[in-house]
Amino acid sequence: MILTYQKQCQARVNATLESALQTPSEALHRLYQAMRYSVLNGGKRVRPLLVYAACETLQGMPEQADGAACAVELIHAYSLVHDDLPAMDDDDLRRGQPTTHKAFDEASAILAGDGLQALAFEVLADARFTPQHAELRLQMVRILAHAAGPAGMVGGQAIDLAAVGQPLTQHELETMDRHKTGALIEASVQLGALASGHADEVSLQALRAYARAVGLAFQVQDDILDIESDTATLGKRQGADVAHDKPTYPALLGLDAAKAYARTLCDQAIDALHPFSDCAEPLRELALYTIERRH
Amino acid sequence: MILTYQKQCQARVNATLESALQTPSEALHRLYQAMRYSVLNGGKRVRPLLVYAACETLQGMPEQADGAACAVELIHAYSLVHDDLPAMDDDDLRRGQPTTHKAFDEASAILAGDGLQALAFEVLADARFTPQHAELRLQMVRILAHAAGPAGMVGGQAIDLAAVGQPLTQHELETMDRHKTGALIEASVQLGALASGHADEVSLQALRAYARAVGLAFQVQDDILDIESDTATLGKRQGADVAHDKPTYPALLGLDAAKAYARTLCDQAIDALHPFSDCAEPLRELALYTIERRH
Repeated sequence: MILTYQKQCQARVNATLESALQTPSEALHRLYQAMRYSVLNGGKRVRPLLVYAACETLQGMPEQADGAACAVELIHAYSLVHDDLPAMDDDDLRRGQPTTHKAFDEASAILAGDGLQALAFEVLADARFTPQHAELRLQMVRILAHAAGPAGMVGGQAIDLAAVGQPLTQHELETMDRHKTGALIEASVQLGALASGHADEVSLQALRAYARAVGLAFQVQDDILDIESDTATLGKRQGADVAHDKPTYPALLGLDAAKAYARTLCDQAIDALHPFSDCAEPLRELALYTIERRH
Repeated sequence: MILTYQKQCQARVNATLESALQTPSEALHRLYQAMRYSVLNGGKRVRPLLVYAACETLQGMPEQADGAACAVELIHAYSLVHDDLPAMDDDDLRRGQPTTHKAFDEASAILAGDGLQALAFEVLADARFTPQHAELRLQMVRILAHAAGPAGMVGGQAIDLAAVGQPLTQHELETMDRHKTGALIEASVQLGALASGHADEVSLQALRAYARAVGLAFQVQDDILDIESDTATLGKRQGADVAHDKPTYPALLGLDAAKAYARTLCDQAIDALHPFSDCAEPLRELALYTIERRH
């Protein structure tokens, strides 16, 4: 049941991404190839799923969430392309395929990432993708720009780079992750809620608590999988965090305590959903998925 | 008189940029330092001047144009930072200073550029910077995202990279430049016009014709200066186009014909302003400046 719902949402966002990534002219063919390669690659679409699930929680329809779902995935995809660059994490494998700068070249990867970011804001501002009234759509643009920007995701990347080889406290590690992955996950939930047209301050506050816990659980589980999973399952190089000398939760807390912490965060996320009825079931399932996934 | 007007506009946009680039927390200090270094460096602010001048042409007030002026300069600054990267043009000098990846490091330059792009959309979506009503502000976001994105500026960069060492026709060179520099210059003029709150389809069409001609004149003059100016005046490496084996107008047409072409384009731009009164004087002066500047 839930699996079918997730597959439907993935199909929706993939169709929207495909539509946003139509090559407009022959001269731009190679750039669009690099962008399409970076996005249309069978990603799990966790952030779009959060958008759809938050929209459903407030009794919105999936078609109201398509633009926001597409926009957050474009931002996520661009961040991975730039993250994998030689000057950044220097990774050659992503989702089981060569990273964009390996499949194309470094300049194409930089430009593909830049183009995907701009496209995210175009999709969100465009009524064809995002049918909400102007005031609401603008609020969504503002939230995404803030979450993706230097005070959000990009800031997290910068803290991450500066932290390589540094001993961090748990508080510092969480500050980094709240920026690096948490900001976009929180924005996904907020955008989905707003897209429903039924968001009020009380429901937004409950959803923010949910998103904060899920975002952190997601990162803790990522760190665990980096140790426990193999490269084939992971689709990226196993042990990359350790190889990069990155601070992680298992390194800080020990593996068992990190697993317990992920479970606690998942429980917190589900608790935060108590004001909502059965409509929040997809969000509950996503919280469980976060800590049960194998890649 | 005009010089004073330009200085006032430059002071306005510099103050807005300064305000948008306040470091929000100590953990983000270095990233914001790299962003501030990339932006607050005495740039000529040609695109913001076009925003203010277009706004004035339709009898708008400068304070209506601050957000749009700031946003286009943030996009321009990010594009220069990424353009200068080793995998792109590999330039070490910009506006007479070390490029961002030289003054900081490559990863910081990638992230600073990414952050500046997101910030541009945040500023444009934020009523504190951009006081226009929601529908208008949203239209401005859409125009900037399209102009900055893969079908605009980023697309132009991609065409440019693919064209290195290739013989291009004048038509192909102009297609490249319409994307690479033209798209953002057109967007600057459109944003300024919309910011006034008095734009109608007739005036927008005249201003688009102006912007297209000025955008091309700007690029032709850039190519001329790359040959004629010295590195100290230019603030970047003289002869870089030739060194990179890039197609240019002087190479294609000869230097004298390129100069005559720039003059013709400037005349076309000024002709396009005939529907407007004295209020268009700053736009006329900017067209002349485009082909008379020495750097």
